[in-house]
Amino acid sequence: MDNHKPLSRIAAVETAIPAVRGVPGFRAAGIHCGLRKDGGPDFALIAADGPCATGGVFTTNEIKAAPVLVNMERLGAHADSIRAVAINTVSANACTGPQGIANAREMARLVAARLGCEAEQVLVLSTGVIGTQLPMDRIARGAELATAFLGGGGDHWEQAACAIMTTDTRPKLAAASGTAAGRSYTIAGISKGAGMIAPNMATMLGIIVTDARLDTAQAQRCIKAAADRSFNRIVVDGDMSTNDTVLLLANGHSGVAPESPEEWAGFQAALEAVCTRLAQEIVRDGEGVTKFVTVQVTGAGDDHDARRIANTIATSALVKTAFYGHDANWGRIIAAAGRAGVPLEADRLRLTIAAGGDELLLVTGGAPTDYREADATRIFRQPEATVMLDCGLADGVAEVWTCDLSHEYVTINGDYRT
Amino acid sequence: MDNHKPLSRIAAVETAIPAVRGVPGFRAAGIHCGLRKDGGPDFALIAADGPCATGGVFTTNEIKAAPVLVNMERLGAHADSIRAVAINTVSANACTGPQGIANAREMARLVAARLGCEAEQVLVLSTGVIGTQLPMDRIARGAELATAFLGGGGDHWEQAACAIMTTDTRPKLAAASGTAAGRSYTIAGISKGAGMIAPNMATMLGIIVTDARLDTAQAQRCIKAAADRSFNRIVVDGDMSTNDTVLLLANGHSGVAPESPEEWAGFQAALEAVCTRLAQEIVRDGEGVTKFVTVQVTGAGDDHDARRIANTIATSALVKTAFYGHDANWGRIIAAAGRAGVPLEADRLRLTIAAGGDELLLVTGGAPTDYREADATRIFRQPEATVMLDCGLADGVAEVWTCDLSHEYVTINGDYRT
Repeated sequence: MDNHKPLSRIAAVETAIPAVRGVPGFRAAGIHCGLRKDGGPDFALIAADGPCATGGVFTTNEIKAAPVLVNMERLGAHADSIRAVAINTVSANACTGPQGIANAREMARLVAARLGCEAEQVLVLSTGVIGTQLPMDRIARGAELATAFLGGGGDHWEQAACAIMTTDTRPKLAAASGTAAGRSYTIAGISKGAGMIAPNMATMLGIIVTDARLDTAQAQRCIKAAADRSFNRIVVDGDMSTNDTVLLLANGHSGVAPESPEEWAGFQAALEAVCTRLAQEIVRDGEGVTKFVTVQVTGAGDDHDARRIANTIATSALVKTAFYGHDANWGRIIAAAGRAGVPLEADRLRLTIAAGGDELLLVTGGAPTDYREADATRIFRQPEATVMLDCGLADGVAEVWTCDLSHEYVTINGDYRT
Repeated sequence: MDNHKPLSRIAAVETAIPAVRGVPGFRAAGIHCGLRKDGGPDFALIAADGPCATGGVFTTNEIKAAPVLVNMERLGAHADSIRAVAINTVSANACTGPQGIANAREMARLVAARLGCEAEQVLVLSTGVIGTQLPMDRIARGAELATAFLGGGGDHWEQAACAIMTTDTRPKLAAASGTAAGRSYTIAGISKGAGMIAPNMATMLGIIVTDARLDTAQAQRCIKAAADRSFNRIVVDGDMSTNDTVLLLANGHSGVAPESPEEWAGFQAALEAVCTRLAQEIVRDGEGVTKFVTVQVTGAGDDHDARRIANTIATSALVKTAFYGHDANWGRIIAAAGRAGVPLEADRLRLTIAAGGDELLLVTGGAPTDYREADATRIFRQPEATVMLDCGLADGVAEVWTCDLSHEYVTINGDYRT
């Protein structure tokens, strides 16, 4: 009704995501260096044949892991000449003091020495247990093995994606391509999500590379905008890690540089398609997840208000347990919206749920319609559903992707040590 | 260390809470009027023999239930002459539009007619399902039966406490007494907490009465301050209801009016003792709760920062599932503190846990001590534990009370309709 308007300006770009192939000028490896007790891959390396313009988005947690601090420093001074990203699992290198900083620097140095570049040209990411020091002998072995793997052809994106997993159940990869001035470029990336190893918390990592030619300001601007519309729109449990990092490396290998507004829009759309796929995969593979839910808020005071409402709904334990129970519990959704800290008017609210082509209006004018409960439950039994709340106030819109809160989530995060 | 200072200025007053007896000049009743299908008590009435100075604190949710809106209006104009509070369960009378407002007014009128006072002198509270209209025939029956009960002596506080329960497993009552000018007064109250009936959410209600003599400004000031240090310091799941209400009615029956600063301090301490007991009981009886946890934050930039840190720790799903698993997962606690949105310095953090006289330092200078995991688990196996985070920055302190997130919570809130 009134202020309901289509979400086209925030809808995900419907770019077909091809199977991930190599991106010219980049190589990837994932190997086991002795960190994981189960012998699985635990060290990944992504390397470029030449210097890359690099942008990065880092956790806003006040407690930042050592590699985050080192990377932020490096992108301040060397964002135009990054050559590689090395990632280890099992230890997050967070809450590790000066020794942790020294170890992060040493990890970069070990990789750089093998690649024949400067330590400042290598970024390092860690995920795993908080509060333990990196076992540097194994990290050195990782640098050695991974660089050796690169030498053998090195187009091992799937192994790299596997090597950054913690409790992820599957590797996450995405790619897209675009054209500028009639020539094509490729964007590809890997991510990991809501995994946890005691005493640790979920870490979200995303590493995206492209052979398009960007300068560092463009790389930073593009990844910041893309992350804001993808990785920053996912909610698993509302917790934020000490290690969250998303990087974009552009090696310019294709020689293609977006120039016209249309070419930039095309590049940004392709980048967002990759980031969106990688972000949504994190939710779908979240701990204990049985349902993927898109929360769309329209008609809010402004986009910022809409975002707060959507995030509050998506984070609410009551709403998430209702999702788990296939329960179209509109009272919880509206009550969560009401505590988002932004203006709302009860009698203007309009709430609709949808799944698999079915759509059902539950609330209008702030009061329930005479919908049949069986119809609502049928929609909420779908593994993917959408909740649409129109506030009827103004033009603010937002969309976030979230999941349910299940017994399995509690088991994974509560029981694993008992 | 450095900025660690005792929490005396926010510690709960150690007032002995006597068994709840009547408060002179007040009567209470709890009866069944046909709302609950199980025949349990579902309508409570608390009435004063004369007009009461009344203060109230209401939900800040933008979506306020009809009775909340009606009560806020009444306390604007009639706070000096409130005579009674009527409470029904099963229907929250929220998201019910103009009919809901009319029904809330009618509920007050029905009670007032029986008590022989004006409708404007009656406050009404509702808890239960969102989105259904009050069945006014049963509400009328409730007004009739409850007032009849009052006529028979009417000192039925426990029945009243039972009649406001939803999924609470036990009634919640508390009382304290104090003296001014050598004469004594009594404060008593009841509360209900984290209950839920589909499609509803937790509602927190607290009704406190005293025979001390206050004016309306004093009643409002006292209950606001007391609620801020009790009901506003509890976290079950971070959700906030459309119906949350705390009321203080002072009938002056004792003739005792606090006057000196010492007398006011004594009155406030007694009121806070009652509110604290009622608030903590809500957490202890929270849905699926197996552990009661006190989170103390010291050394923050200011008290506001400390409160945000404490609330973020207490609301974190990762922290709460760790509590459930008896897991002294300090990494999750510190990571939650770090995303509270206030300044922190990793190398100044100091984290201690305690229970049953045992105390263990887990983190100092931002890095783990060499504590033994078995010692930490022994402490976290206690049903009541304390988490103490010292930020080492300044003087800000806060204390909140929270609980774990268990399988049972998910079952109660996710499975009940499936």
